[in-house]
Amino acid sequence: MKVASMKQGTITGEHGYSINVDMTFNEVDPKDFDILVLPGGKAPEKVRLEEKALEIARHFFRENKLVGAICHGSQTLISAGVIEGRKATCYIGIRDDIKCAGVLYEDKEVVVDGNLITSRHPRDLYAFGRELVKKIHKLL
Amino acid sequence: MKVASMKQGTITGEHGYSINVDMTFNEVDPKDFDILVLPGGKAPEKVRLEEKALEIARHFFRENKLVGAICHGSQTLISAGVIEGRKATCYIGIRDDIKCAGVLYEDKEVVVDGNLITSRHPRDLYAFGRELVKKIHKLL
Repeated sequence: MKVASMKQGTITGEHGYSINVDMTFNEVDPKDFDILVLPGGKAPEKVRLEEKALEIARHFFRENKLVGAICHGSQTLISAGVIEGRKATCYIGIRDDIKCAGVLYEDKEVVVDGNLITSRHPRDLYAFGRELVKKIHKLL
Repeated sequence: MKVASMKQGTITGEHGYSINVDMTFNEVDPKDFDILVLPGGKAPEKVRLEEKALEIARHFFRENKLVGAICHGSQTLISAGVIEGRKATCYIGIRDDIKCAGVLYEDKEVVVDGNLITSRHPRDLYAFGRELVKKIHKLL
């Protein structure tokens, strides 16, 4: 697993957990990866402005590779223009935004639509992880 | 001027300024007001989920009364379904959301389109206030 972000360094989440950035978006060759997971929080409002991040997301959809997005993570998918016509869920505060982007929104702990797995908020993490792991098992 | 919010109390902004809530959304009769100003920050992701807040916004558009929205404020207008086809600006992190909502986005300090005045972020406050005051002068 590699953590990619806008710049190198350490990211500390809302609950105090820290994670090191392995590579910047520009260092990512999406062909080297099978799964893309987009976390939420405040970051997606910045990530979605990075053209390389959008290119990475588009690669995963074009190649039908597994993508997970939770909470605000789907903001990046809206900007990448890859979720029109798909079934998905997201943080309720951006529900109307994914609807405007042409998504069939479902208020469920996890929505699986082909390569796309989405959840609403941290309380859905168990279901989100469960469905990701199921798909990963099929890749092995 | 009255400050309306989801509940009574004091709101303290990111920069430490406080303001008292005068009334809840449910106590607002929009017919009593000439101007609606929607501030930004994290609140609009909650405000946009309040049906009464959306009704208030719809009243202002239906009656062609003055509406100002800055930063994330236009998230409430997206949810109210009132800005499709309008010219507007907003915080850059939600730019793609107002585009998906059918807005002709402009990257300018202030965009005036009929009854709707929008700005991008706190650094645009001077321009935002200037255009609001110009319109208010016409009401007097």
